[in-house]
Amino acid sequence: MTSKDSRSHEELVKLIDEKMGLIKHKIAVVSGKGGVGKSFITTSLAVLAASAGRTVGVLDADIHGPSIPKALGINNPQLTISAGGLEPAVGPLDIKVISTQFFLPGDDVPLIWRGPLKGRLIGEFLSSVNWGPLDILFVDLPPGTGDEALSIAQYIKKLTGALIVTIPTSLSKLVVKKAVRFCMELQIPILGIVENMKELICPTCNETYTVFPGNAGSEIARELGINYLGTIPLDPRVSECVDSGIPYVLKYPDTPVTKSLKAMFSEMMRLIEGNG
Amino acid sequence: MTSKDSRSHEELVKLIDEKMGLIKHKIAVVSGKGGVGKSFITTSLAVLAASAGRTVGVLDADIHGPSIPKALGINNPQLTISAGGLEPAVGPLDIKVISTQFFLPGDDVPLIWRGPLKGRLIGEFLSSVNWGPLDILFVDLPPGTGDEALSIAQYIKKLTGALIVTIPTSLSKLVVKKAVRFCMELQIPILGIVENMKELICPTCNETYTVFPGNAGSEIARELGINYLGTIPLDPRVSECVDSGIPYVLKYPDTPVTKSLKAMFSEMMRLIEGNG
Repeated sequence: MTSKDSRSHEELVKLIDEKMGLIKHKIAVVSGKGGVGKSFITTSLAVLAASAGRTVGVLDADIHGPSIPKALGINNPQLTISAGGLEPAVGPLDIKVISTQFFLPGDDVPLIWRGPLKGRLIGEFLSSVNWGPLDILFVDLPPGTGDEALSIAQYIKKLTGALIVTIPTSLSKLVVKKAVRFCMELQIPILGIVENMKELICPTCNETYTVFPGNAGSEIARELGINYLGTIPLDPRVSECVDSGIPYVLKYPDTPVTKSLKAMFSEMMRLIEGNG
Repeated sequence: MTSKDSRSHEELVKLIDEKMGLIKHKIAVVSGKGGVGKSFITTSLAVLAASAGRTVGVLDADIHGPSIPKALGINNPQLTISAGGLEPAVGPLDIKVISTQFFLPGDDVPLIWRGPLKGRLIGEFLSSVNWGPLDILFVDLPPGTGDEALSIAQYIKKLTGALIVTIPTSLSKLVVKKAVRFCMELQIPILGIVENMKELICPTCNETYTVFPGNAGSEIARELGINYLGTIPLDPRVSECVDSGIPYVLKYPDTPVTKSLKAMFSEMMRLIEGNG
């Protein structure tokens, strides 16, 4: 990636346009707020898309807190360079993945970077990685409406759309609404909003109850006029799977969580491919 | 705050040194990861400190996702300018608060800012706000090890220390370890690590179980040689209180959550004031 450091901004933009032109759908997964399960939803949708026969990539744009490699069980991959550029790592179901995590000398090493460097790294991930032709590239954005999100929005000119993720609380609503407004201001089409970690089913008494109270998802959808894609329950096995790098939707294909994700995936595909 | 735009970097640093010199203890609350309850812990410790007779301020350094005003029930305060600078808003128990939220024309308006502007805003919050003499200023940092965290670390030369917050999962461990290493690299003393959202008690059957599996807090403490400040259980009333702006530790003074927070507060005070 260093050989191209001296190229001009115009060259960078041209390269990105070329690479992104090979990818049918570019979908940003956005929340504005951290800890809402964005990486889980990104990787679950990627796995469902690959299971449905689509060619899929995931760009982990969370430079400070990259989570995608762990969630997909990709540890210390050997990256190679080909004529087409840097080859992404290959995860389950041939999902192609790029993350800052792959470039760090150790798991716990932080990237202590200010904005301009981060914007440049995003540019590299889009221009120098040999994504090749793909049906869908998911871009997992970090919390906030700063450099990473702005760079993605500015470099990928034809983003298919954004999926918004929130948890039910009123605090999450406050922060996630800002992310929706961010997409609107940057004219990124919004595919819809997902409400994660809704109710919980006690494994002992089977009673359903609420850990994170509120209805942020449906409220944001109504107040800002966007598509509501439904809720995903809170299930401790989600964290277990993410922590061990096993795709939950493959391990637990019939749980309420997977059913919700499958319904969201179908709706997303209907929106982007126009089927159904 | 605009009248000082033309001042030099040296003038800014001098002003910050003067203002920060009036504050005995400057404590950064850090996690690296979002959604771990950092703002809840910051505001709870601030309320406990104020209840214990300390003069307290909270600087909400999360520019994109400010949560402190909501958690302390401060809505659309009228800010005033005095000879000493911009007067912070005053919350429960006379806690002084500054947050970007106060400067936005609406709740859901995002600040779509790149790093350099964010660094400058942090400089303003430290130099132009009339914090006055305080016992403790808590600085609530956003997720990540980028501009906001770097600016705080560079502008406040004598940070008393950092409190690290994680949830129990292995994914959180990965990201939060980066934040600990960030503090170490910038030579910020680490007061200790708190593990939030540990086990949950089913309100129906009283059975305790795990929503976010793992032991990230104690593991990070052991692996990186930092102080372990214990766990806080997951309690749905925490979100209810944060959402309605009522300090949980005042409303529920005897729950396991409050007991844990009080123990952490005592340990923190022992570490910074040398009592006990």
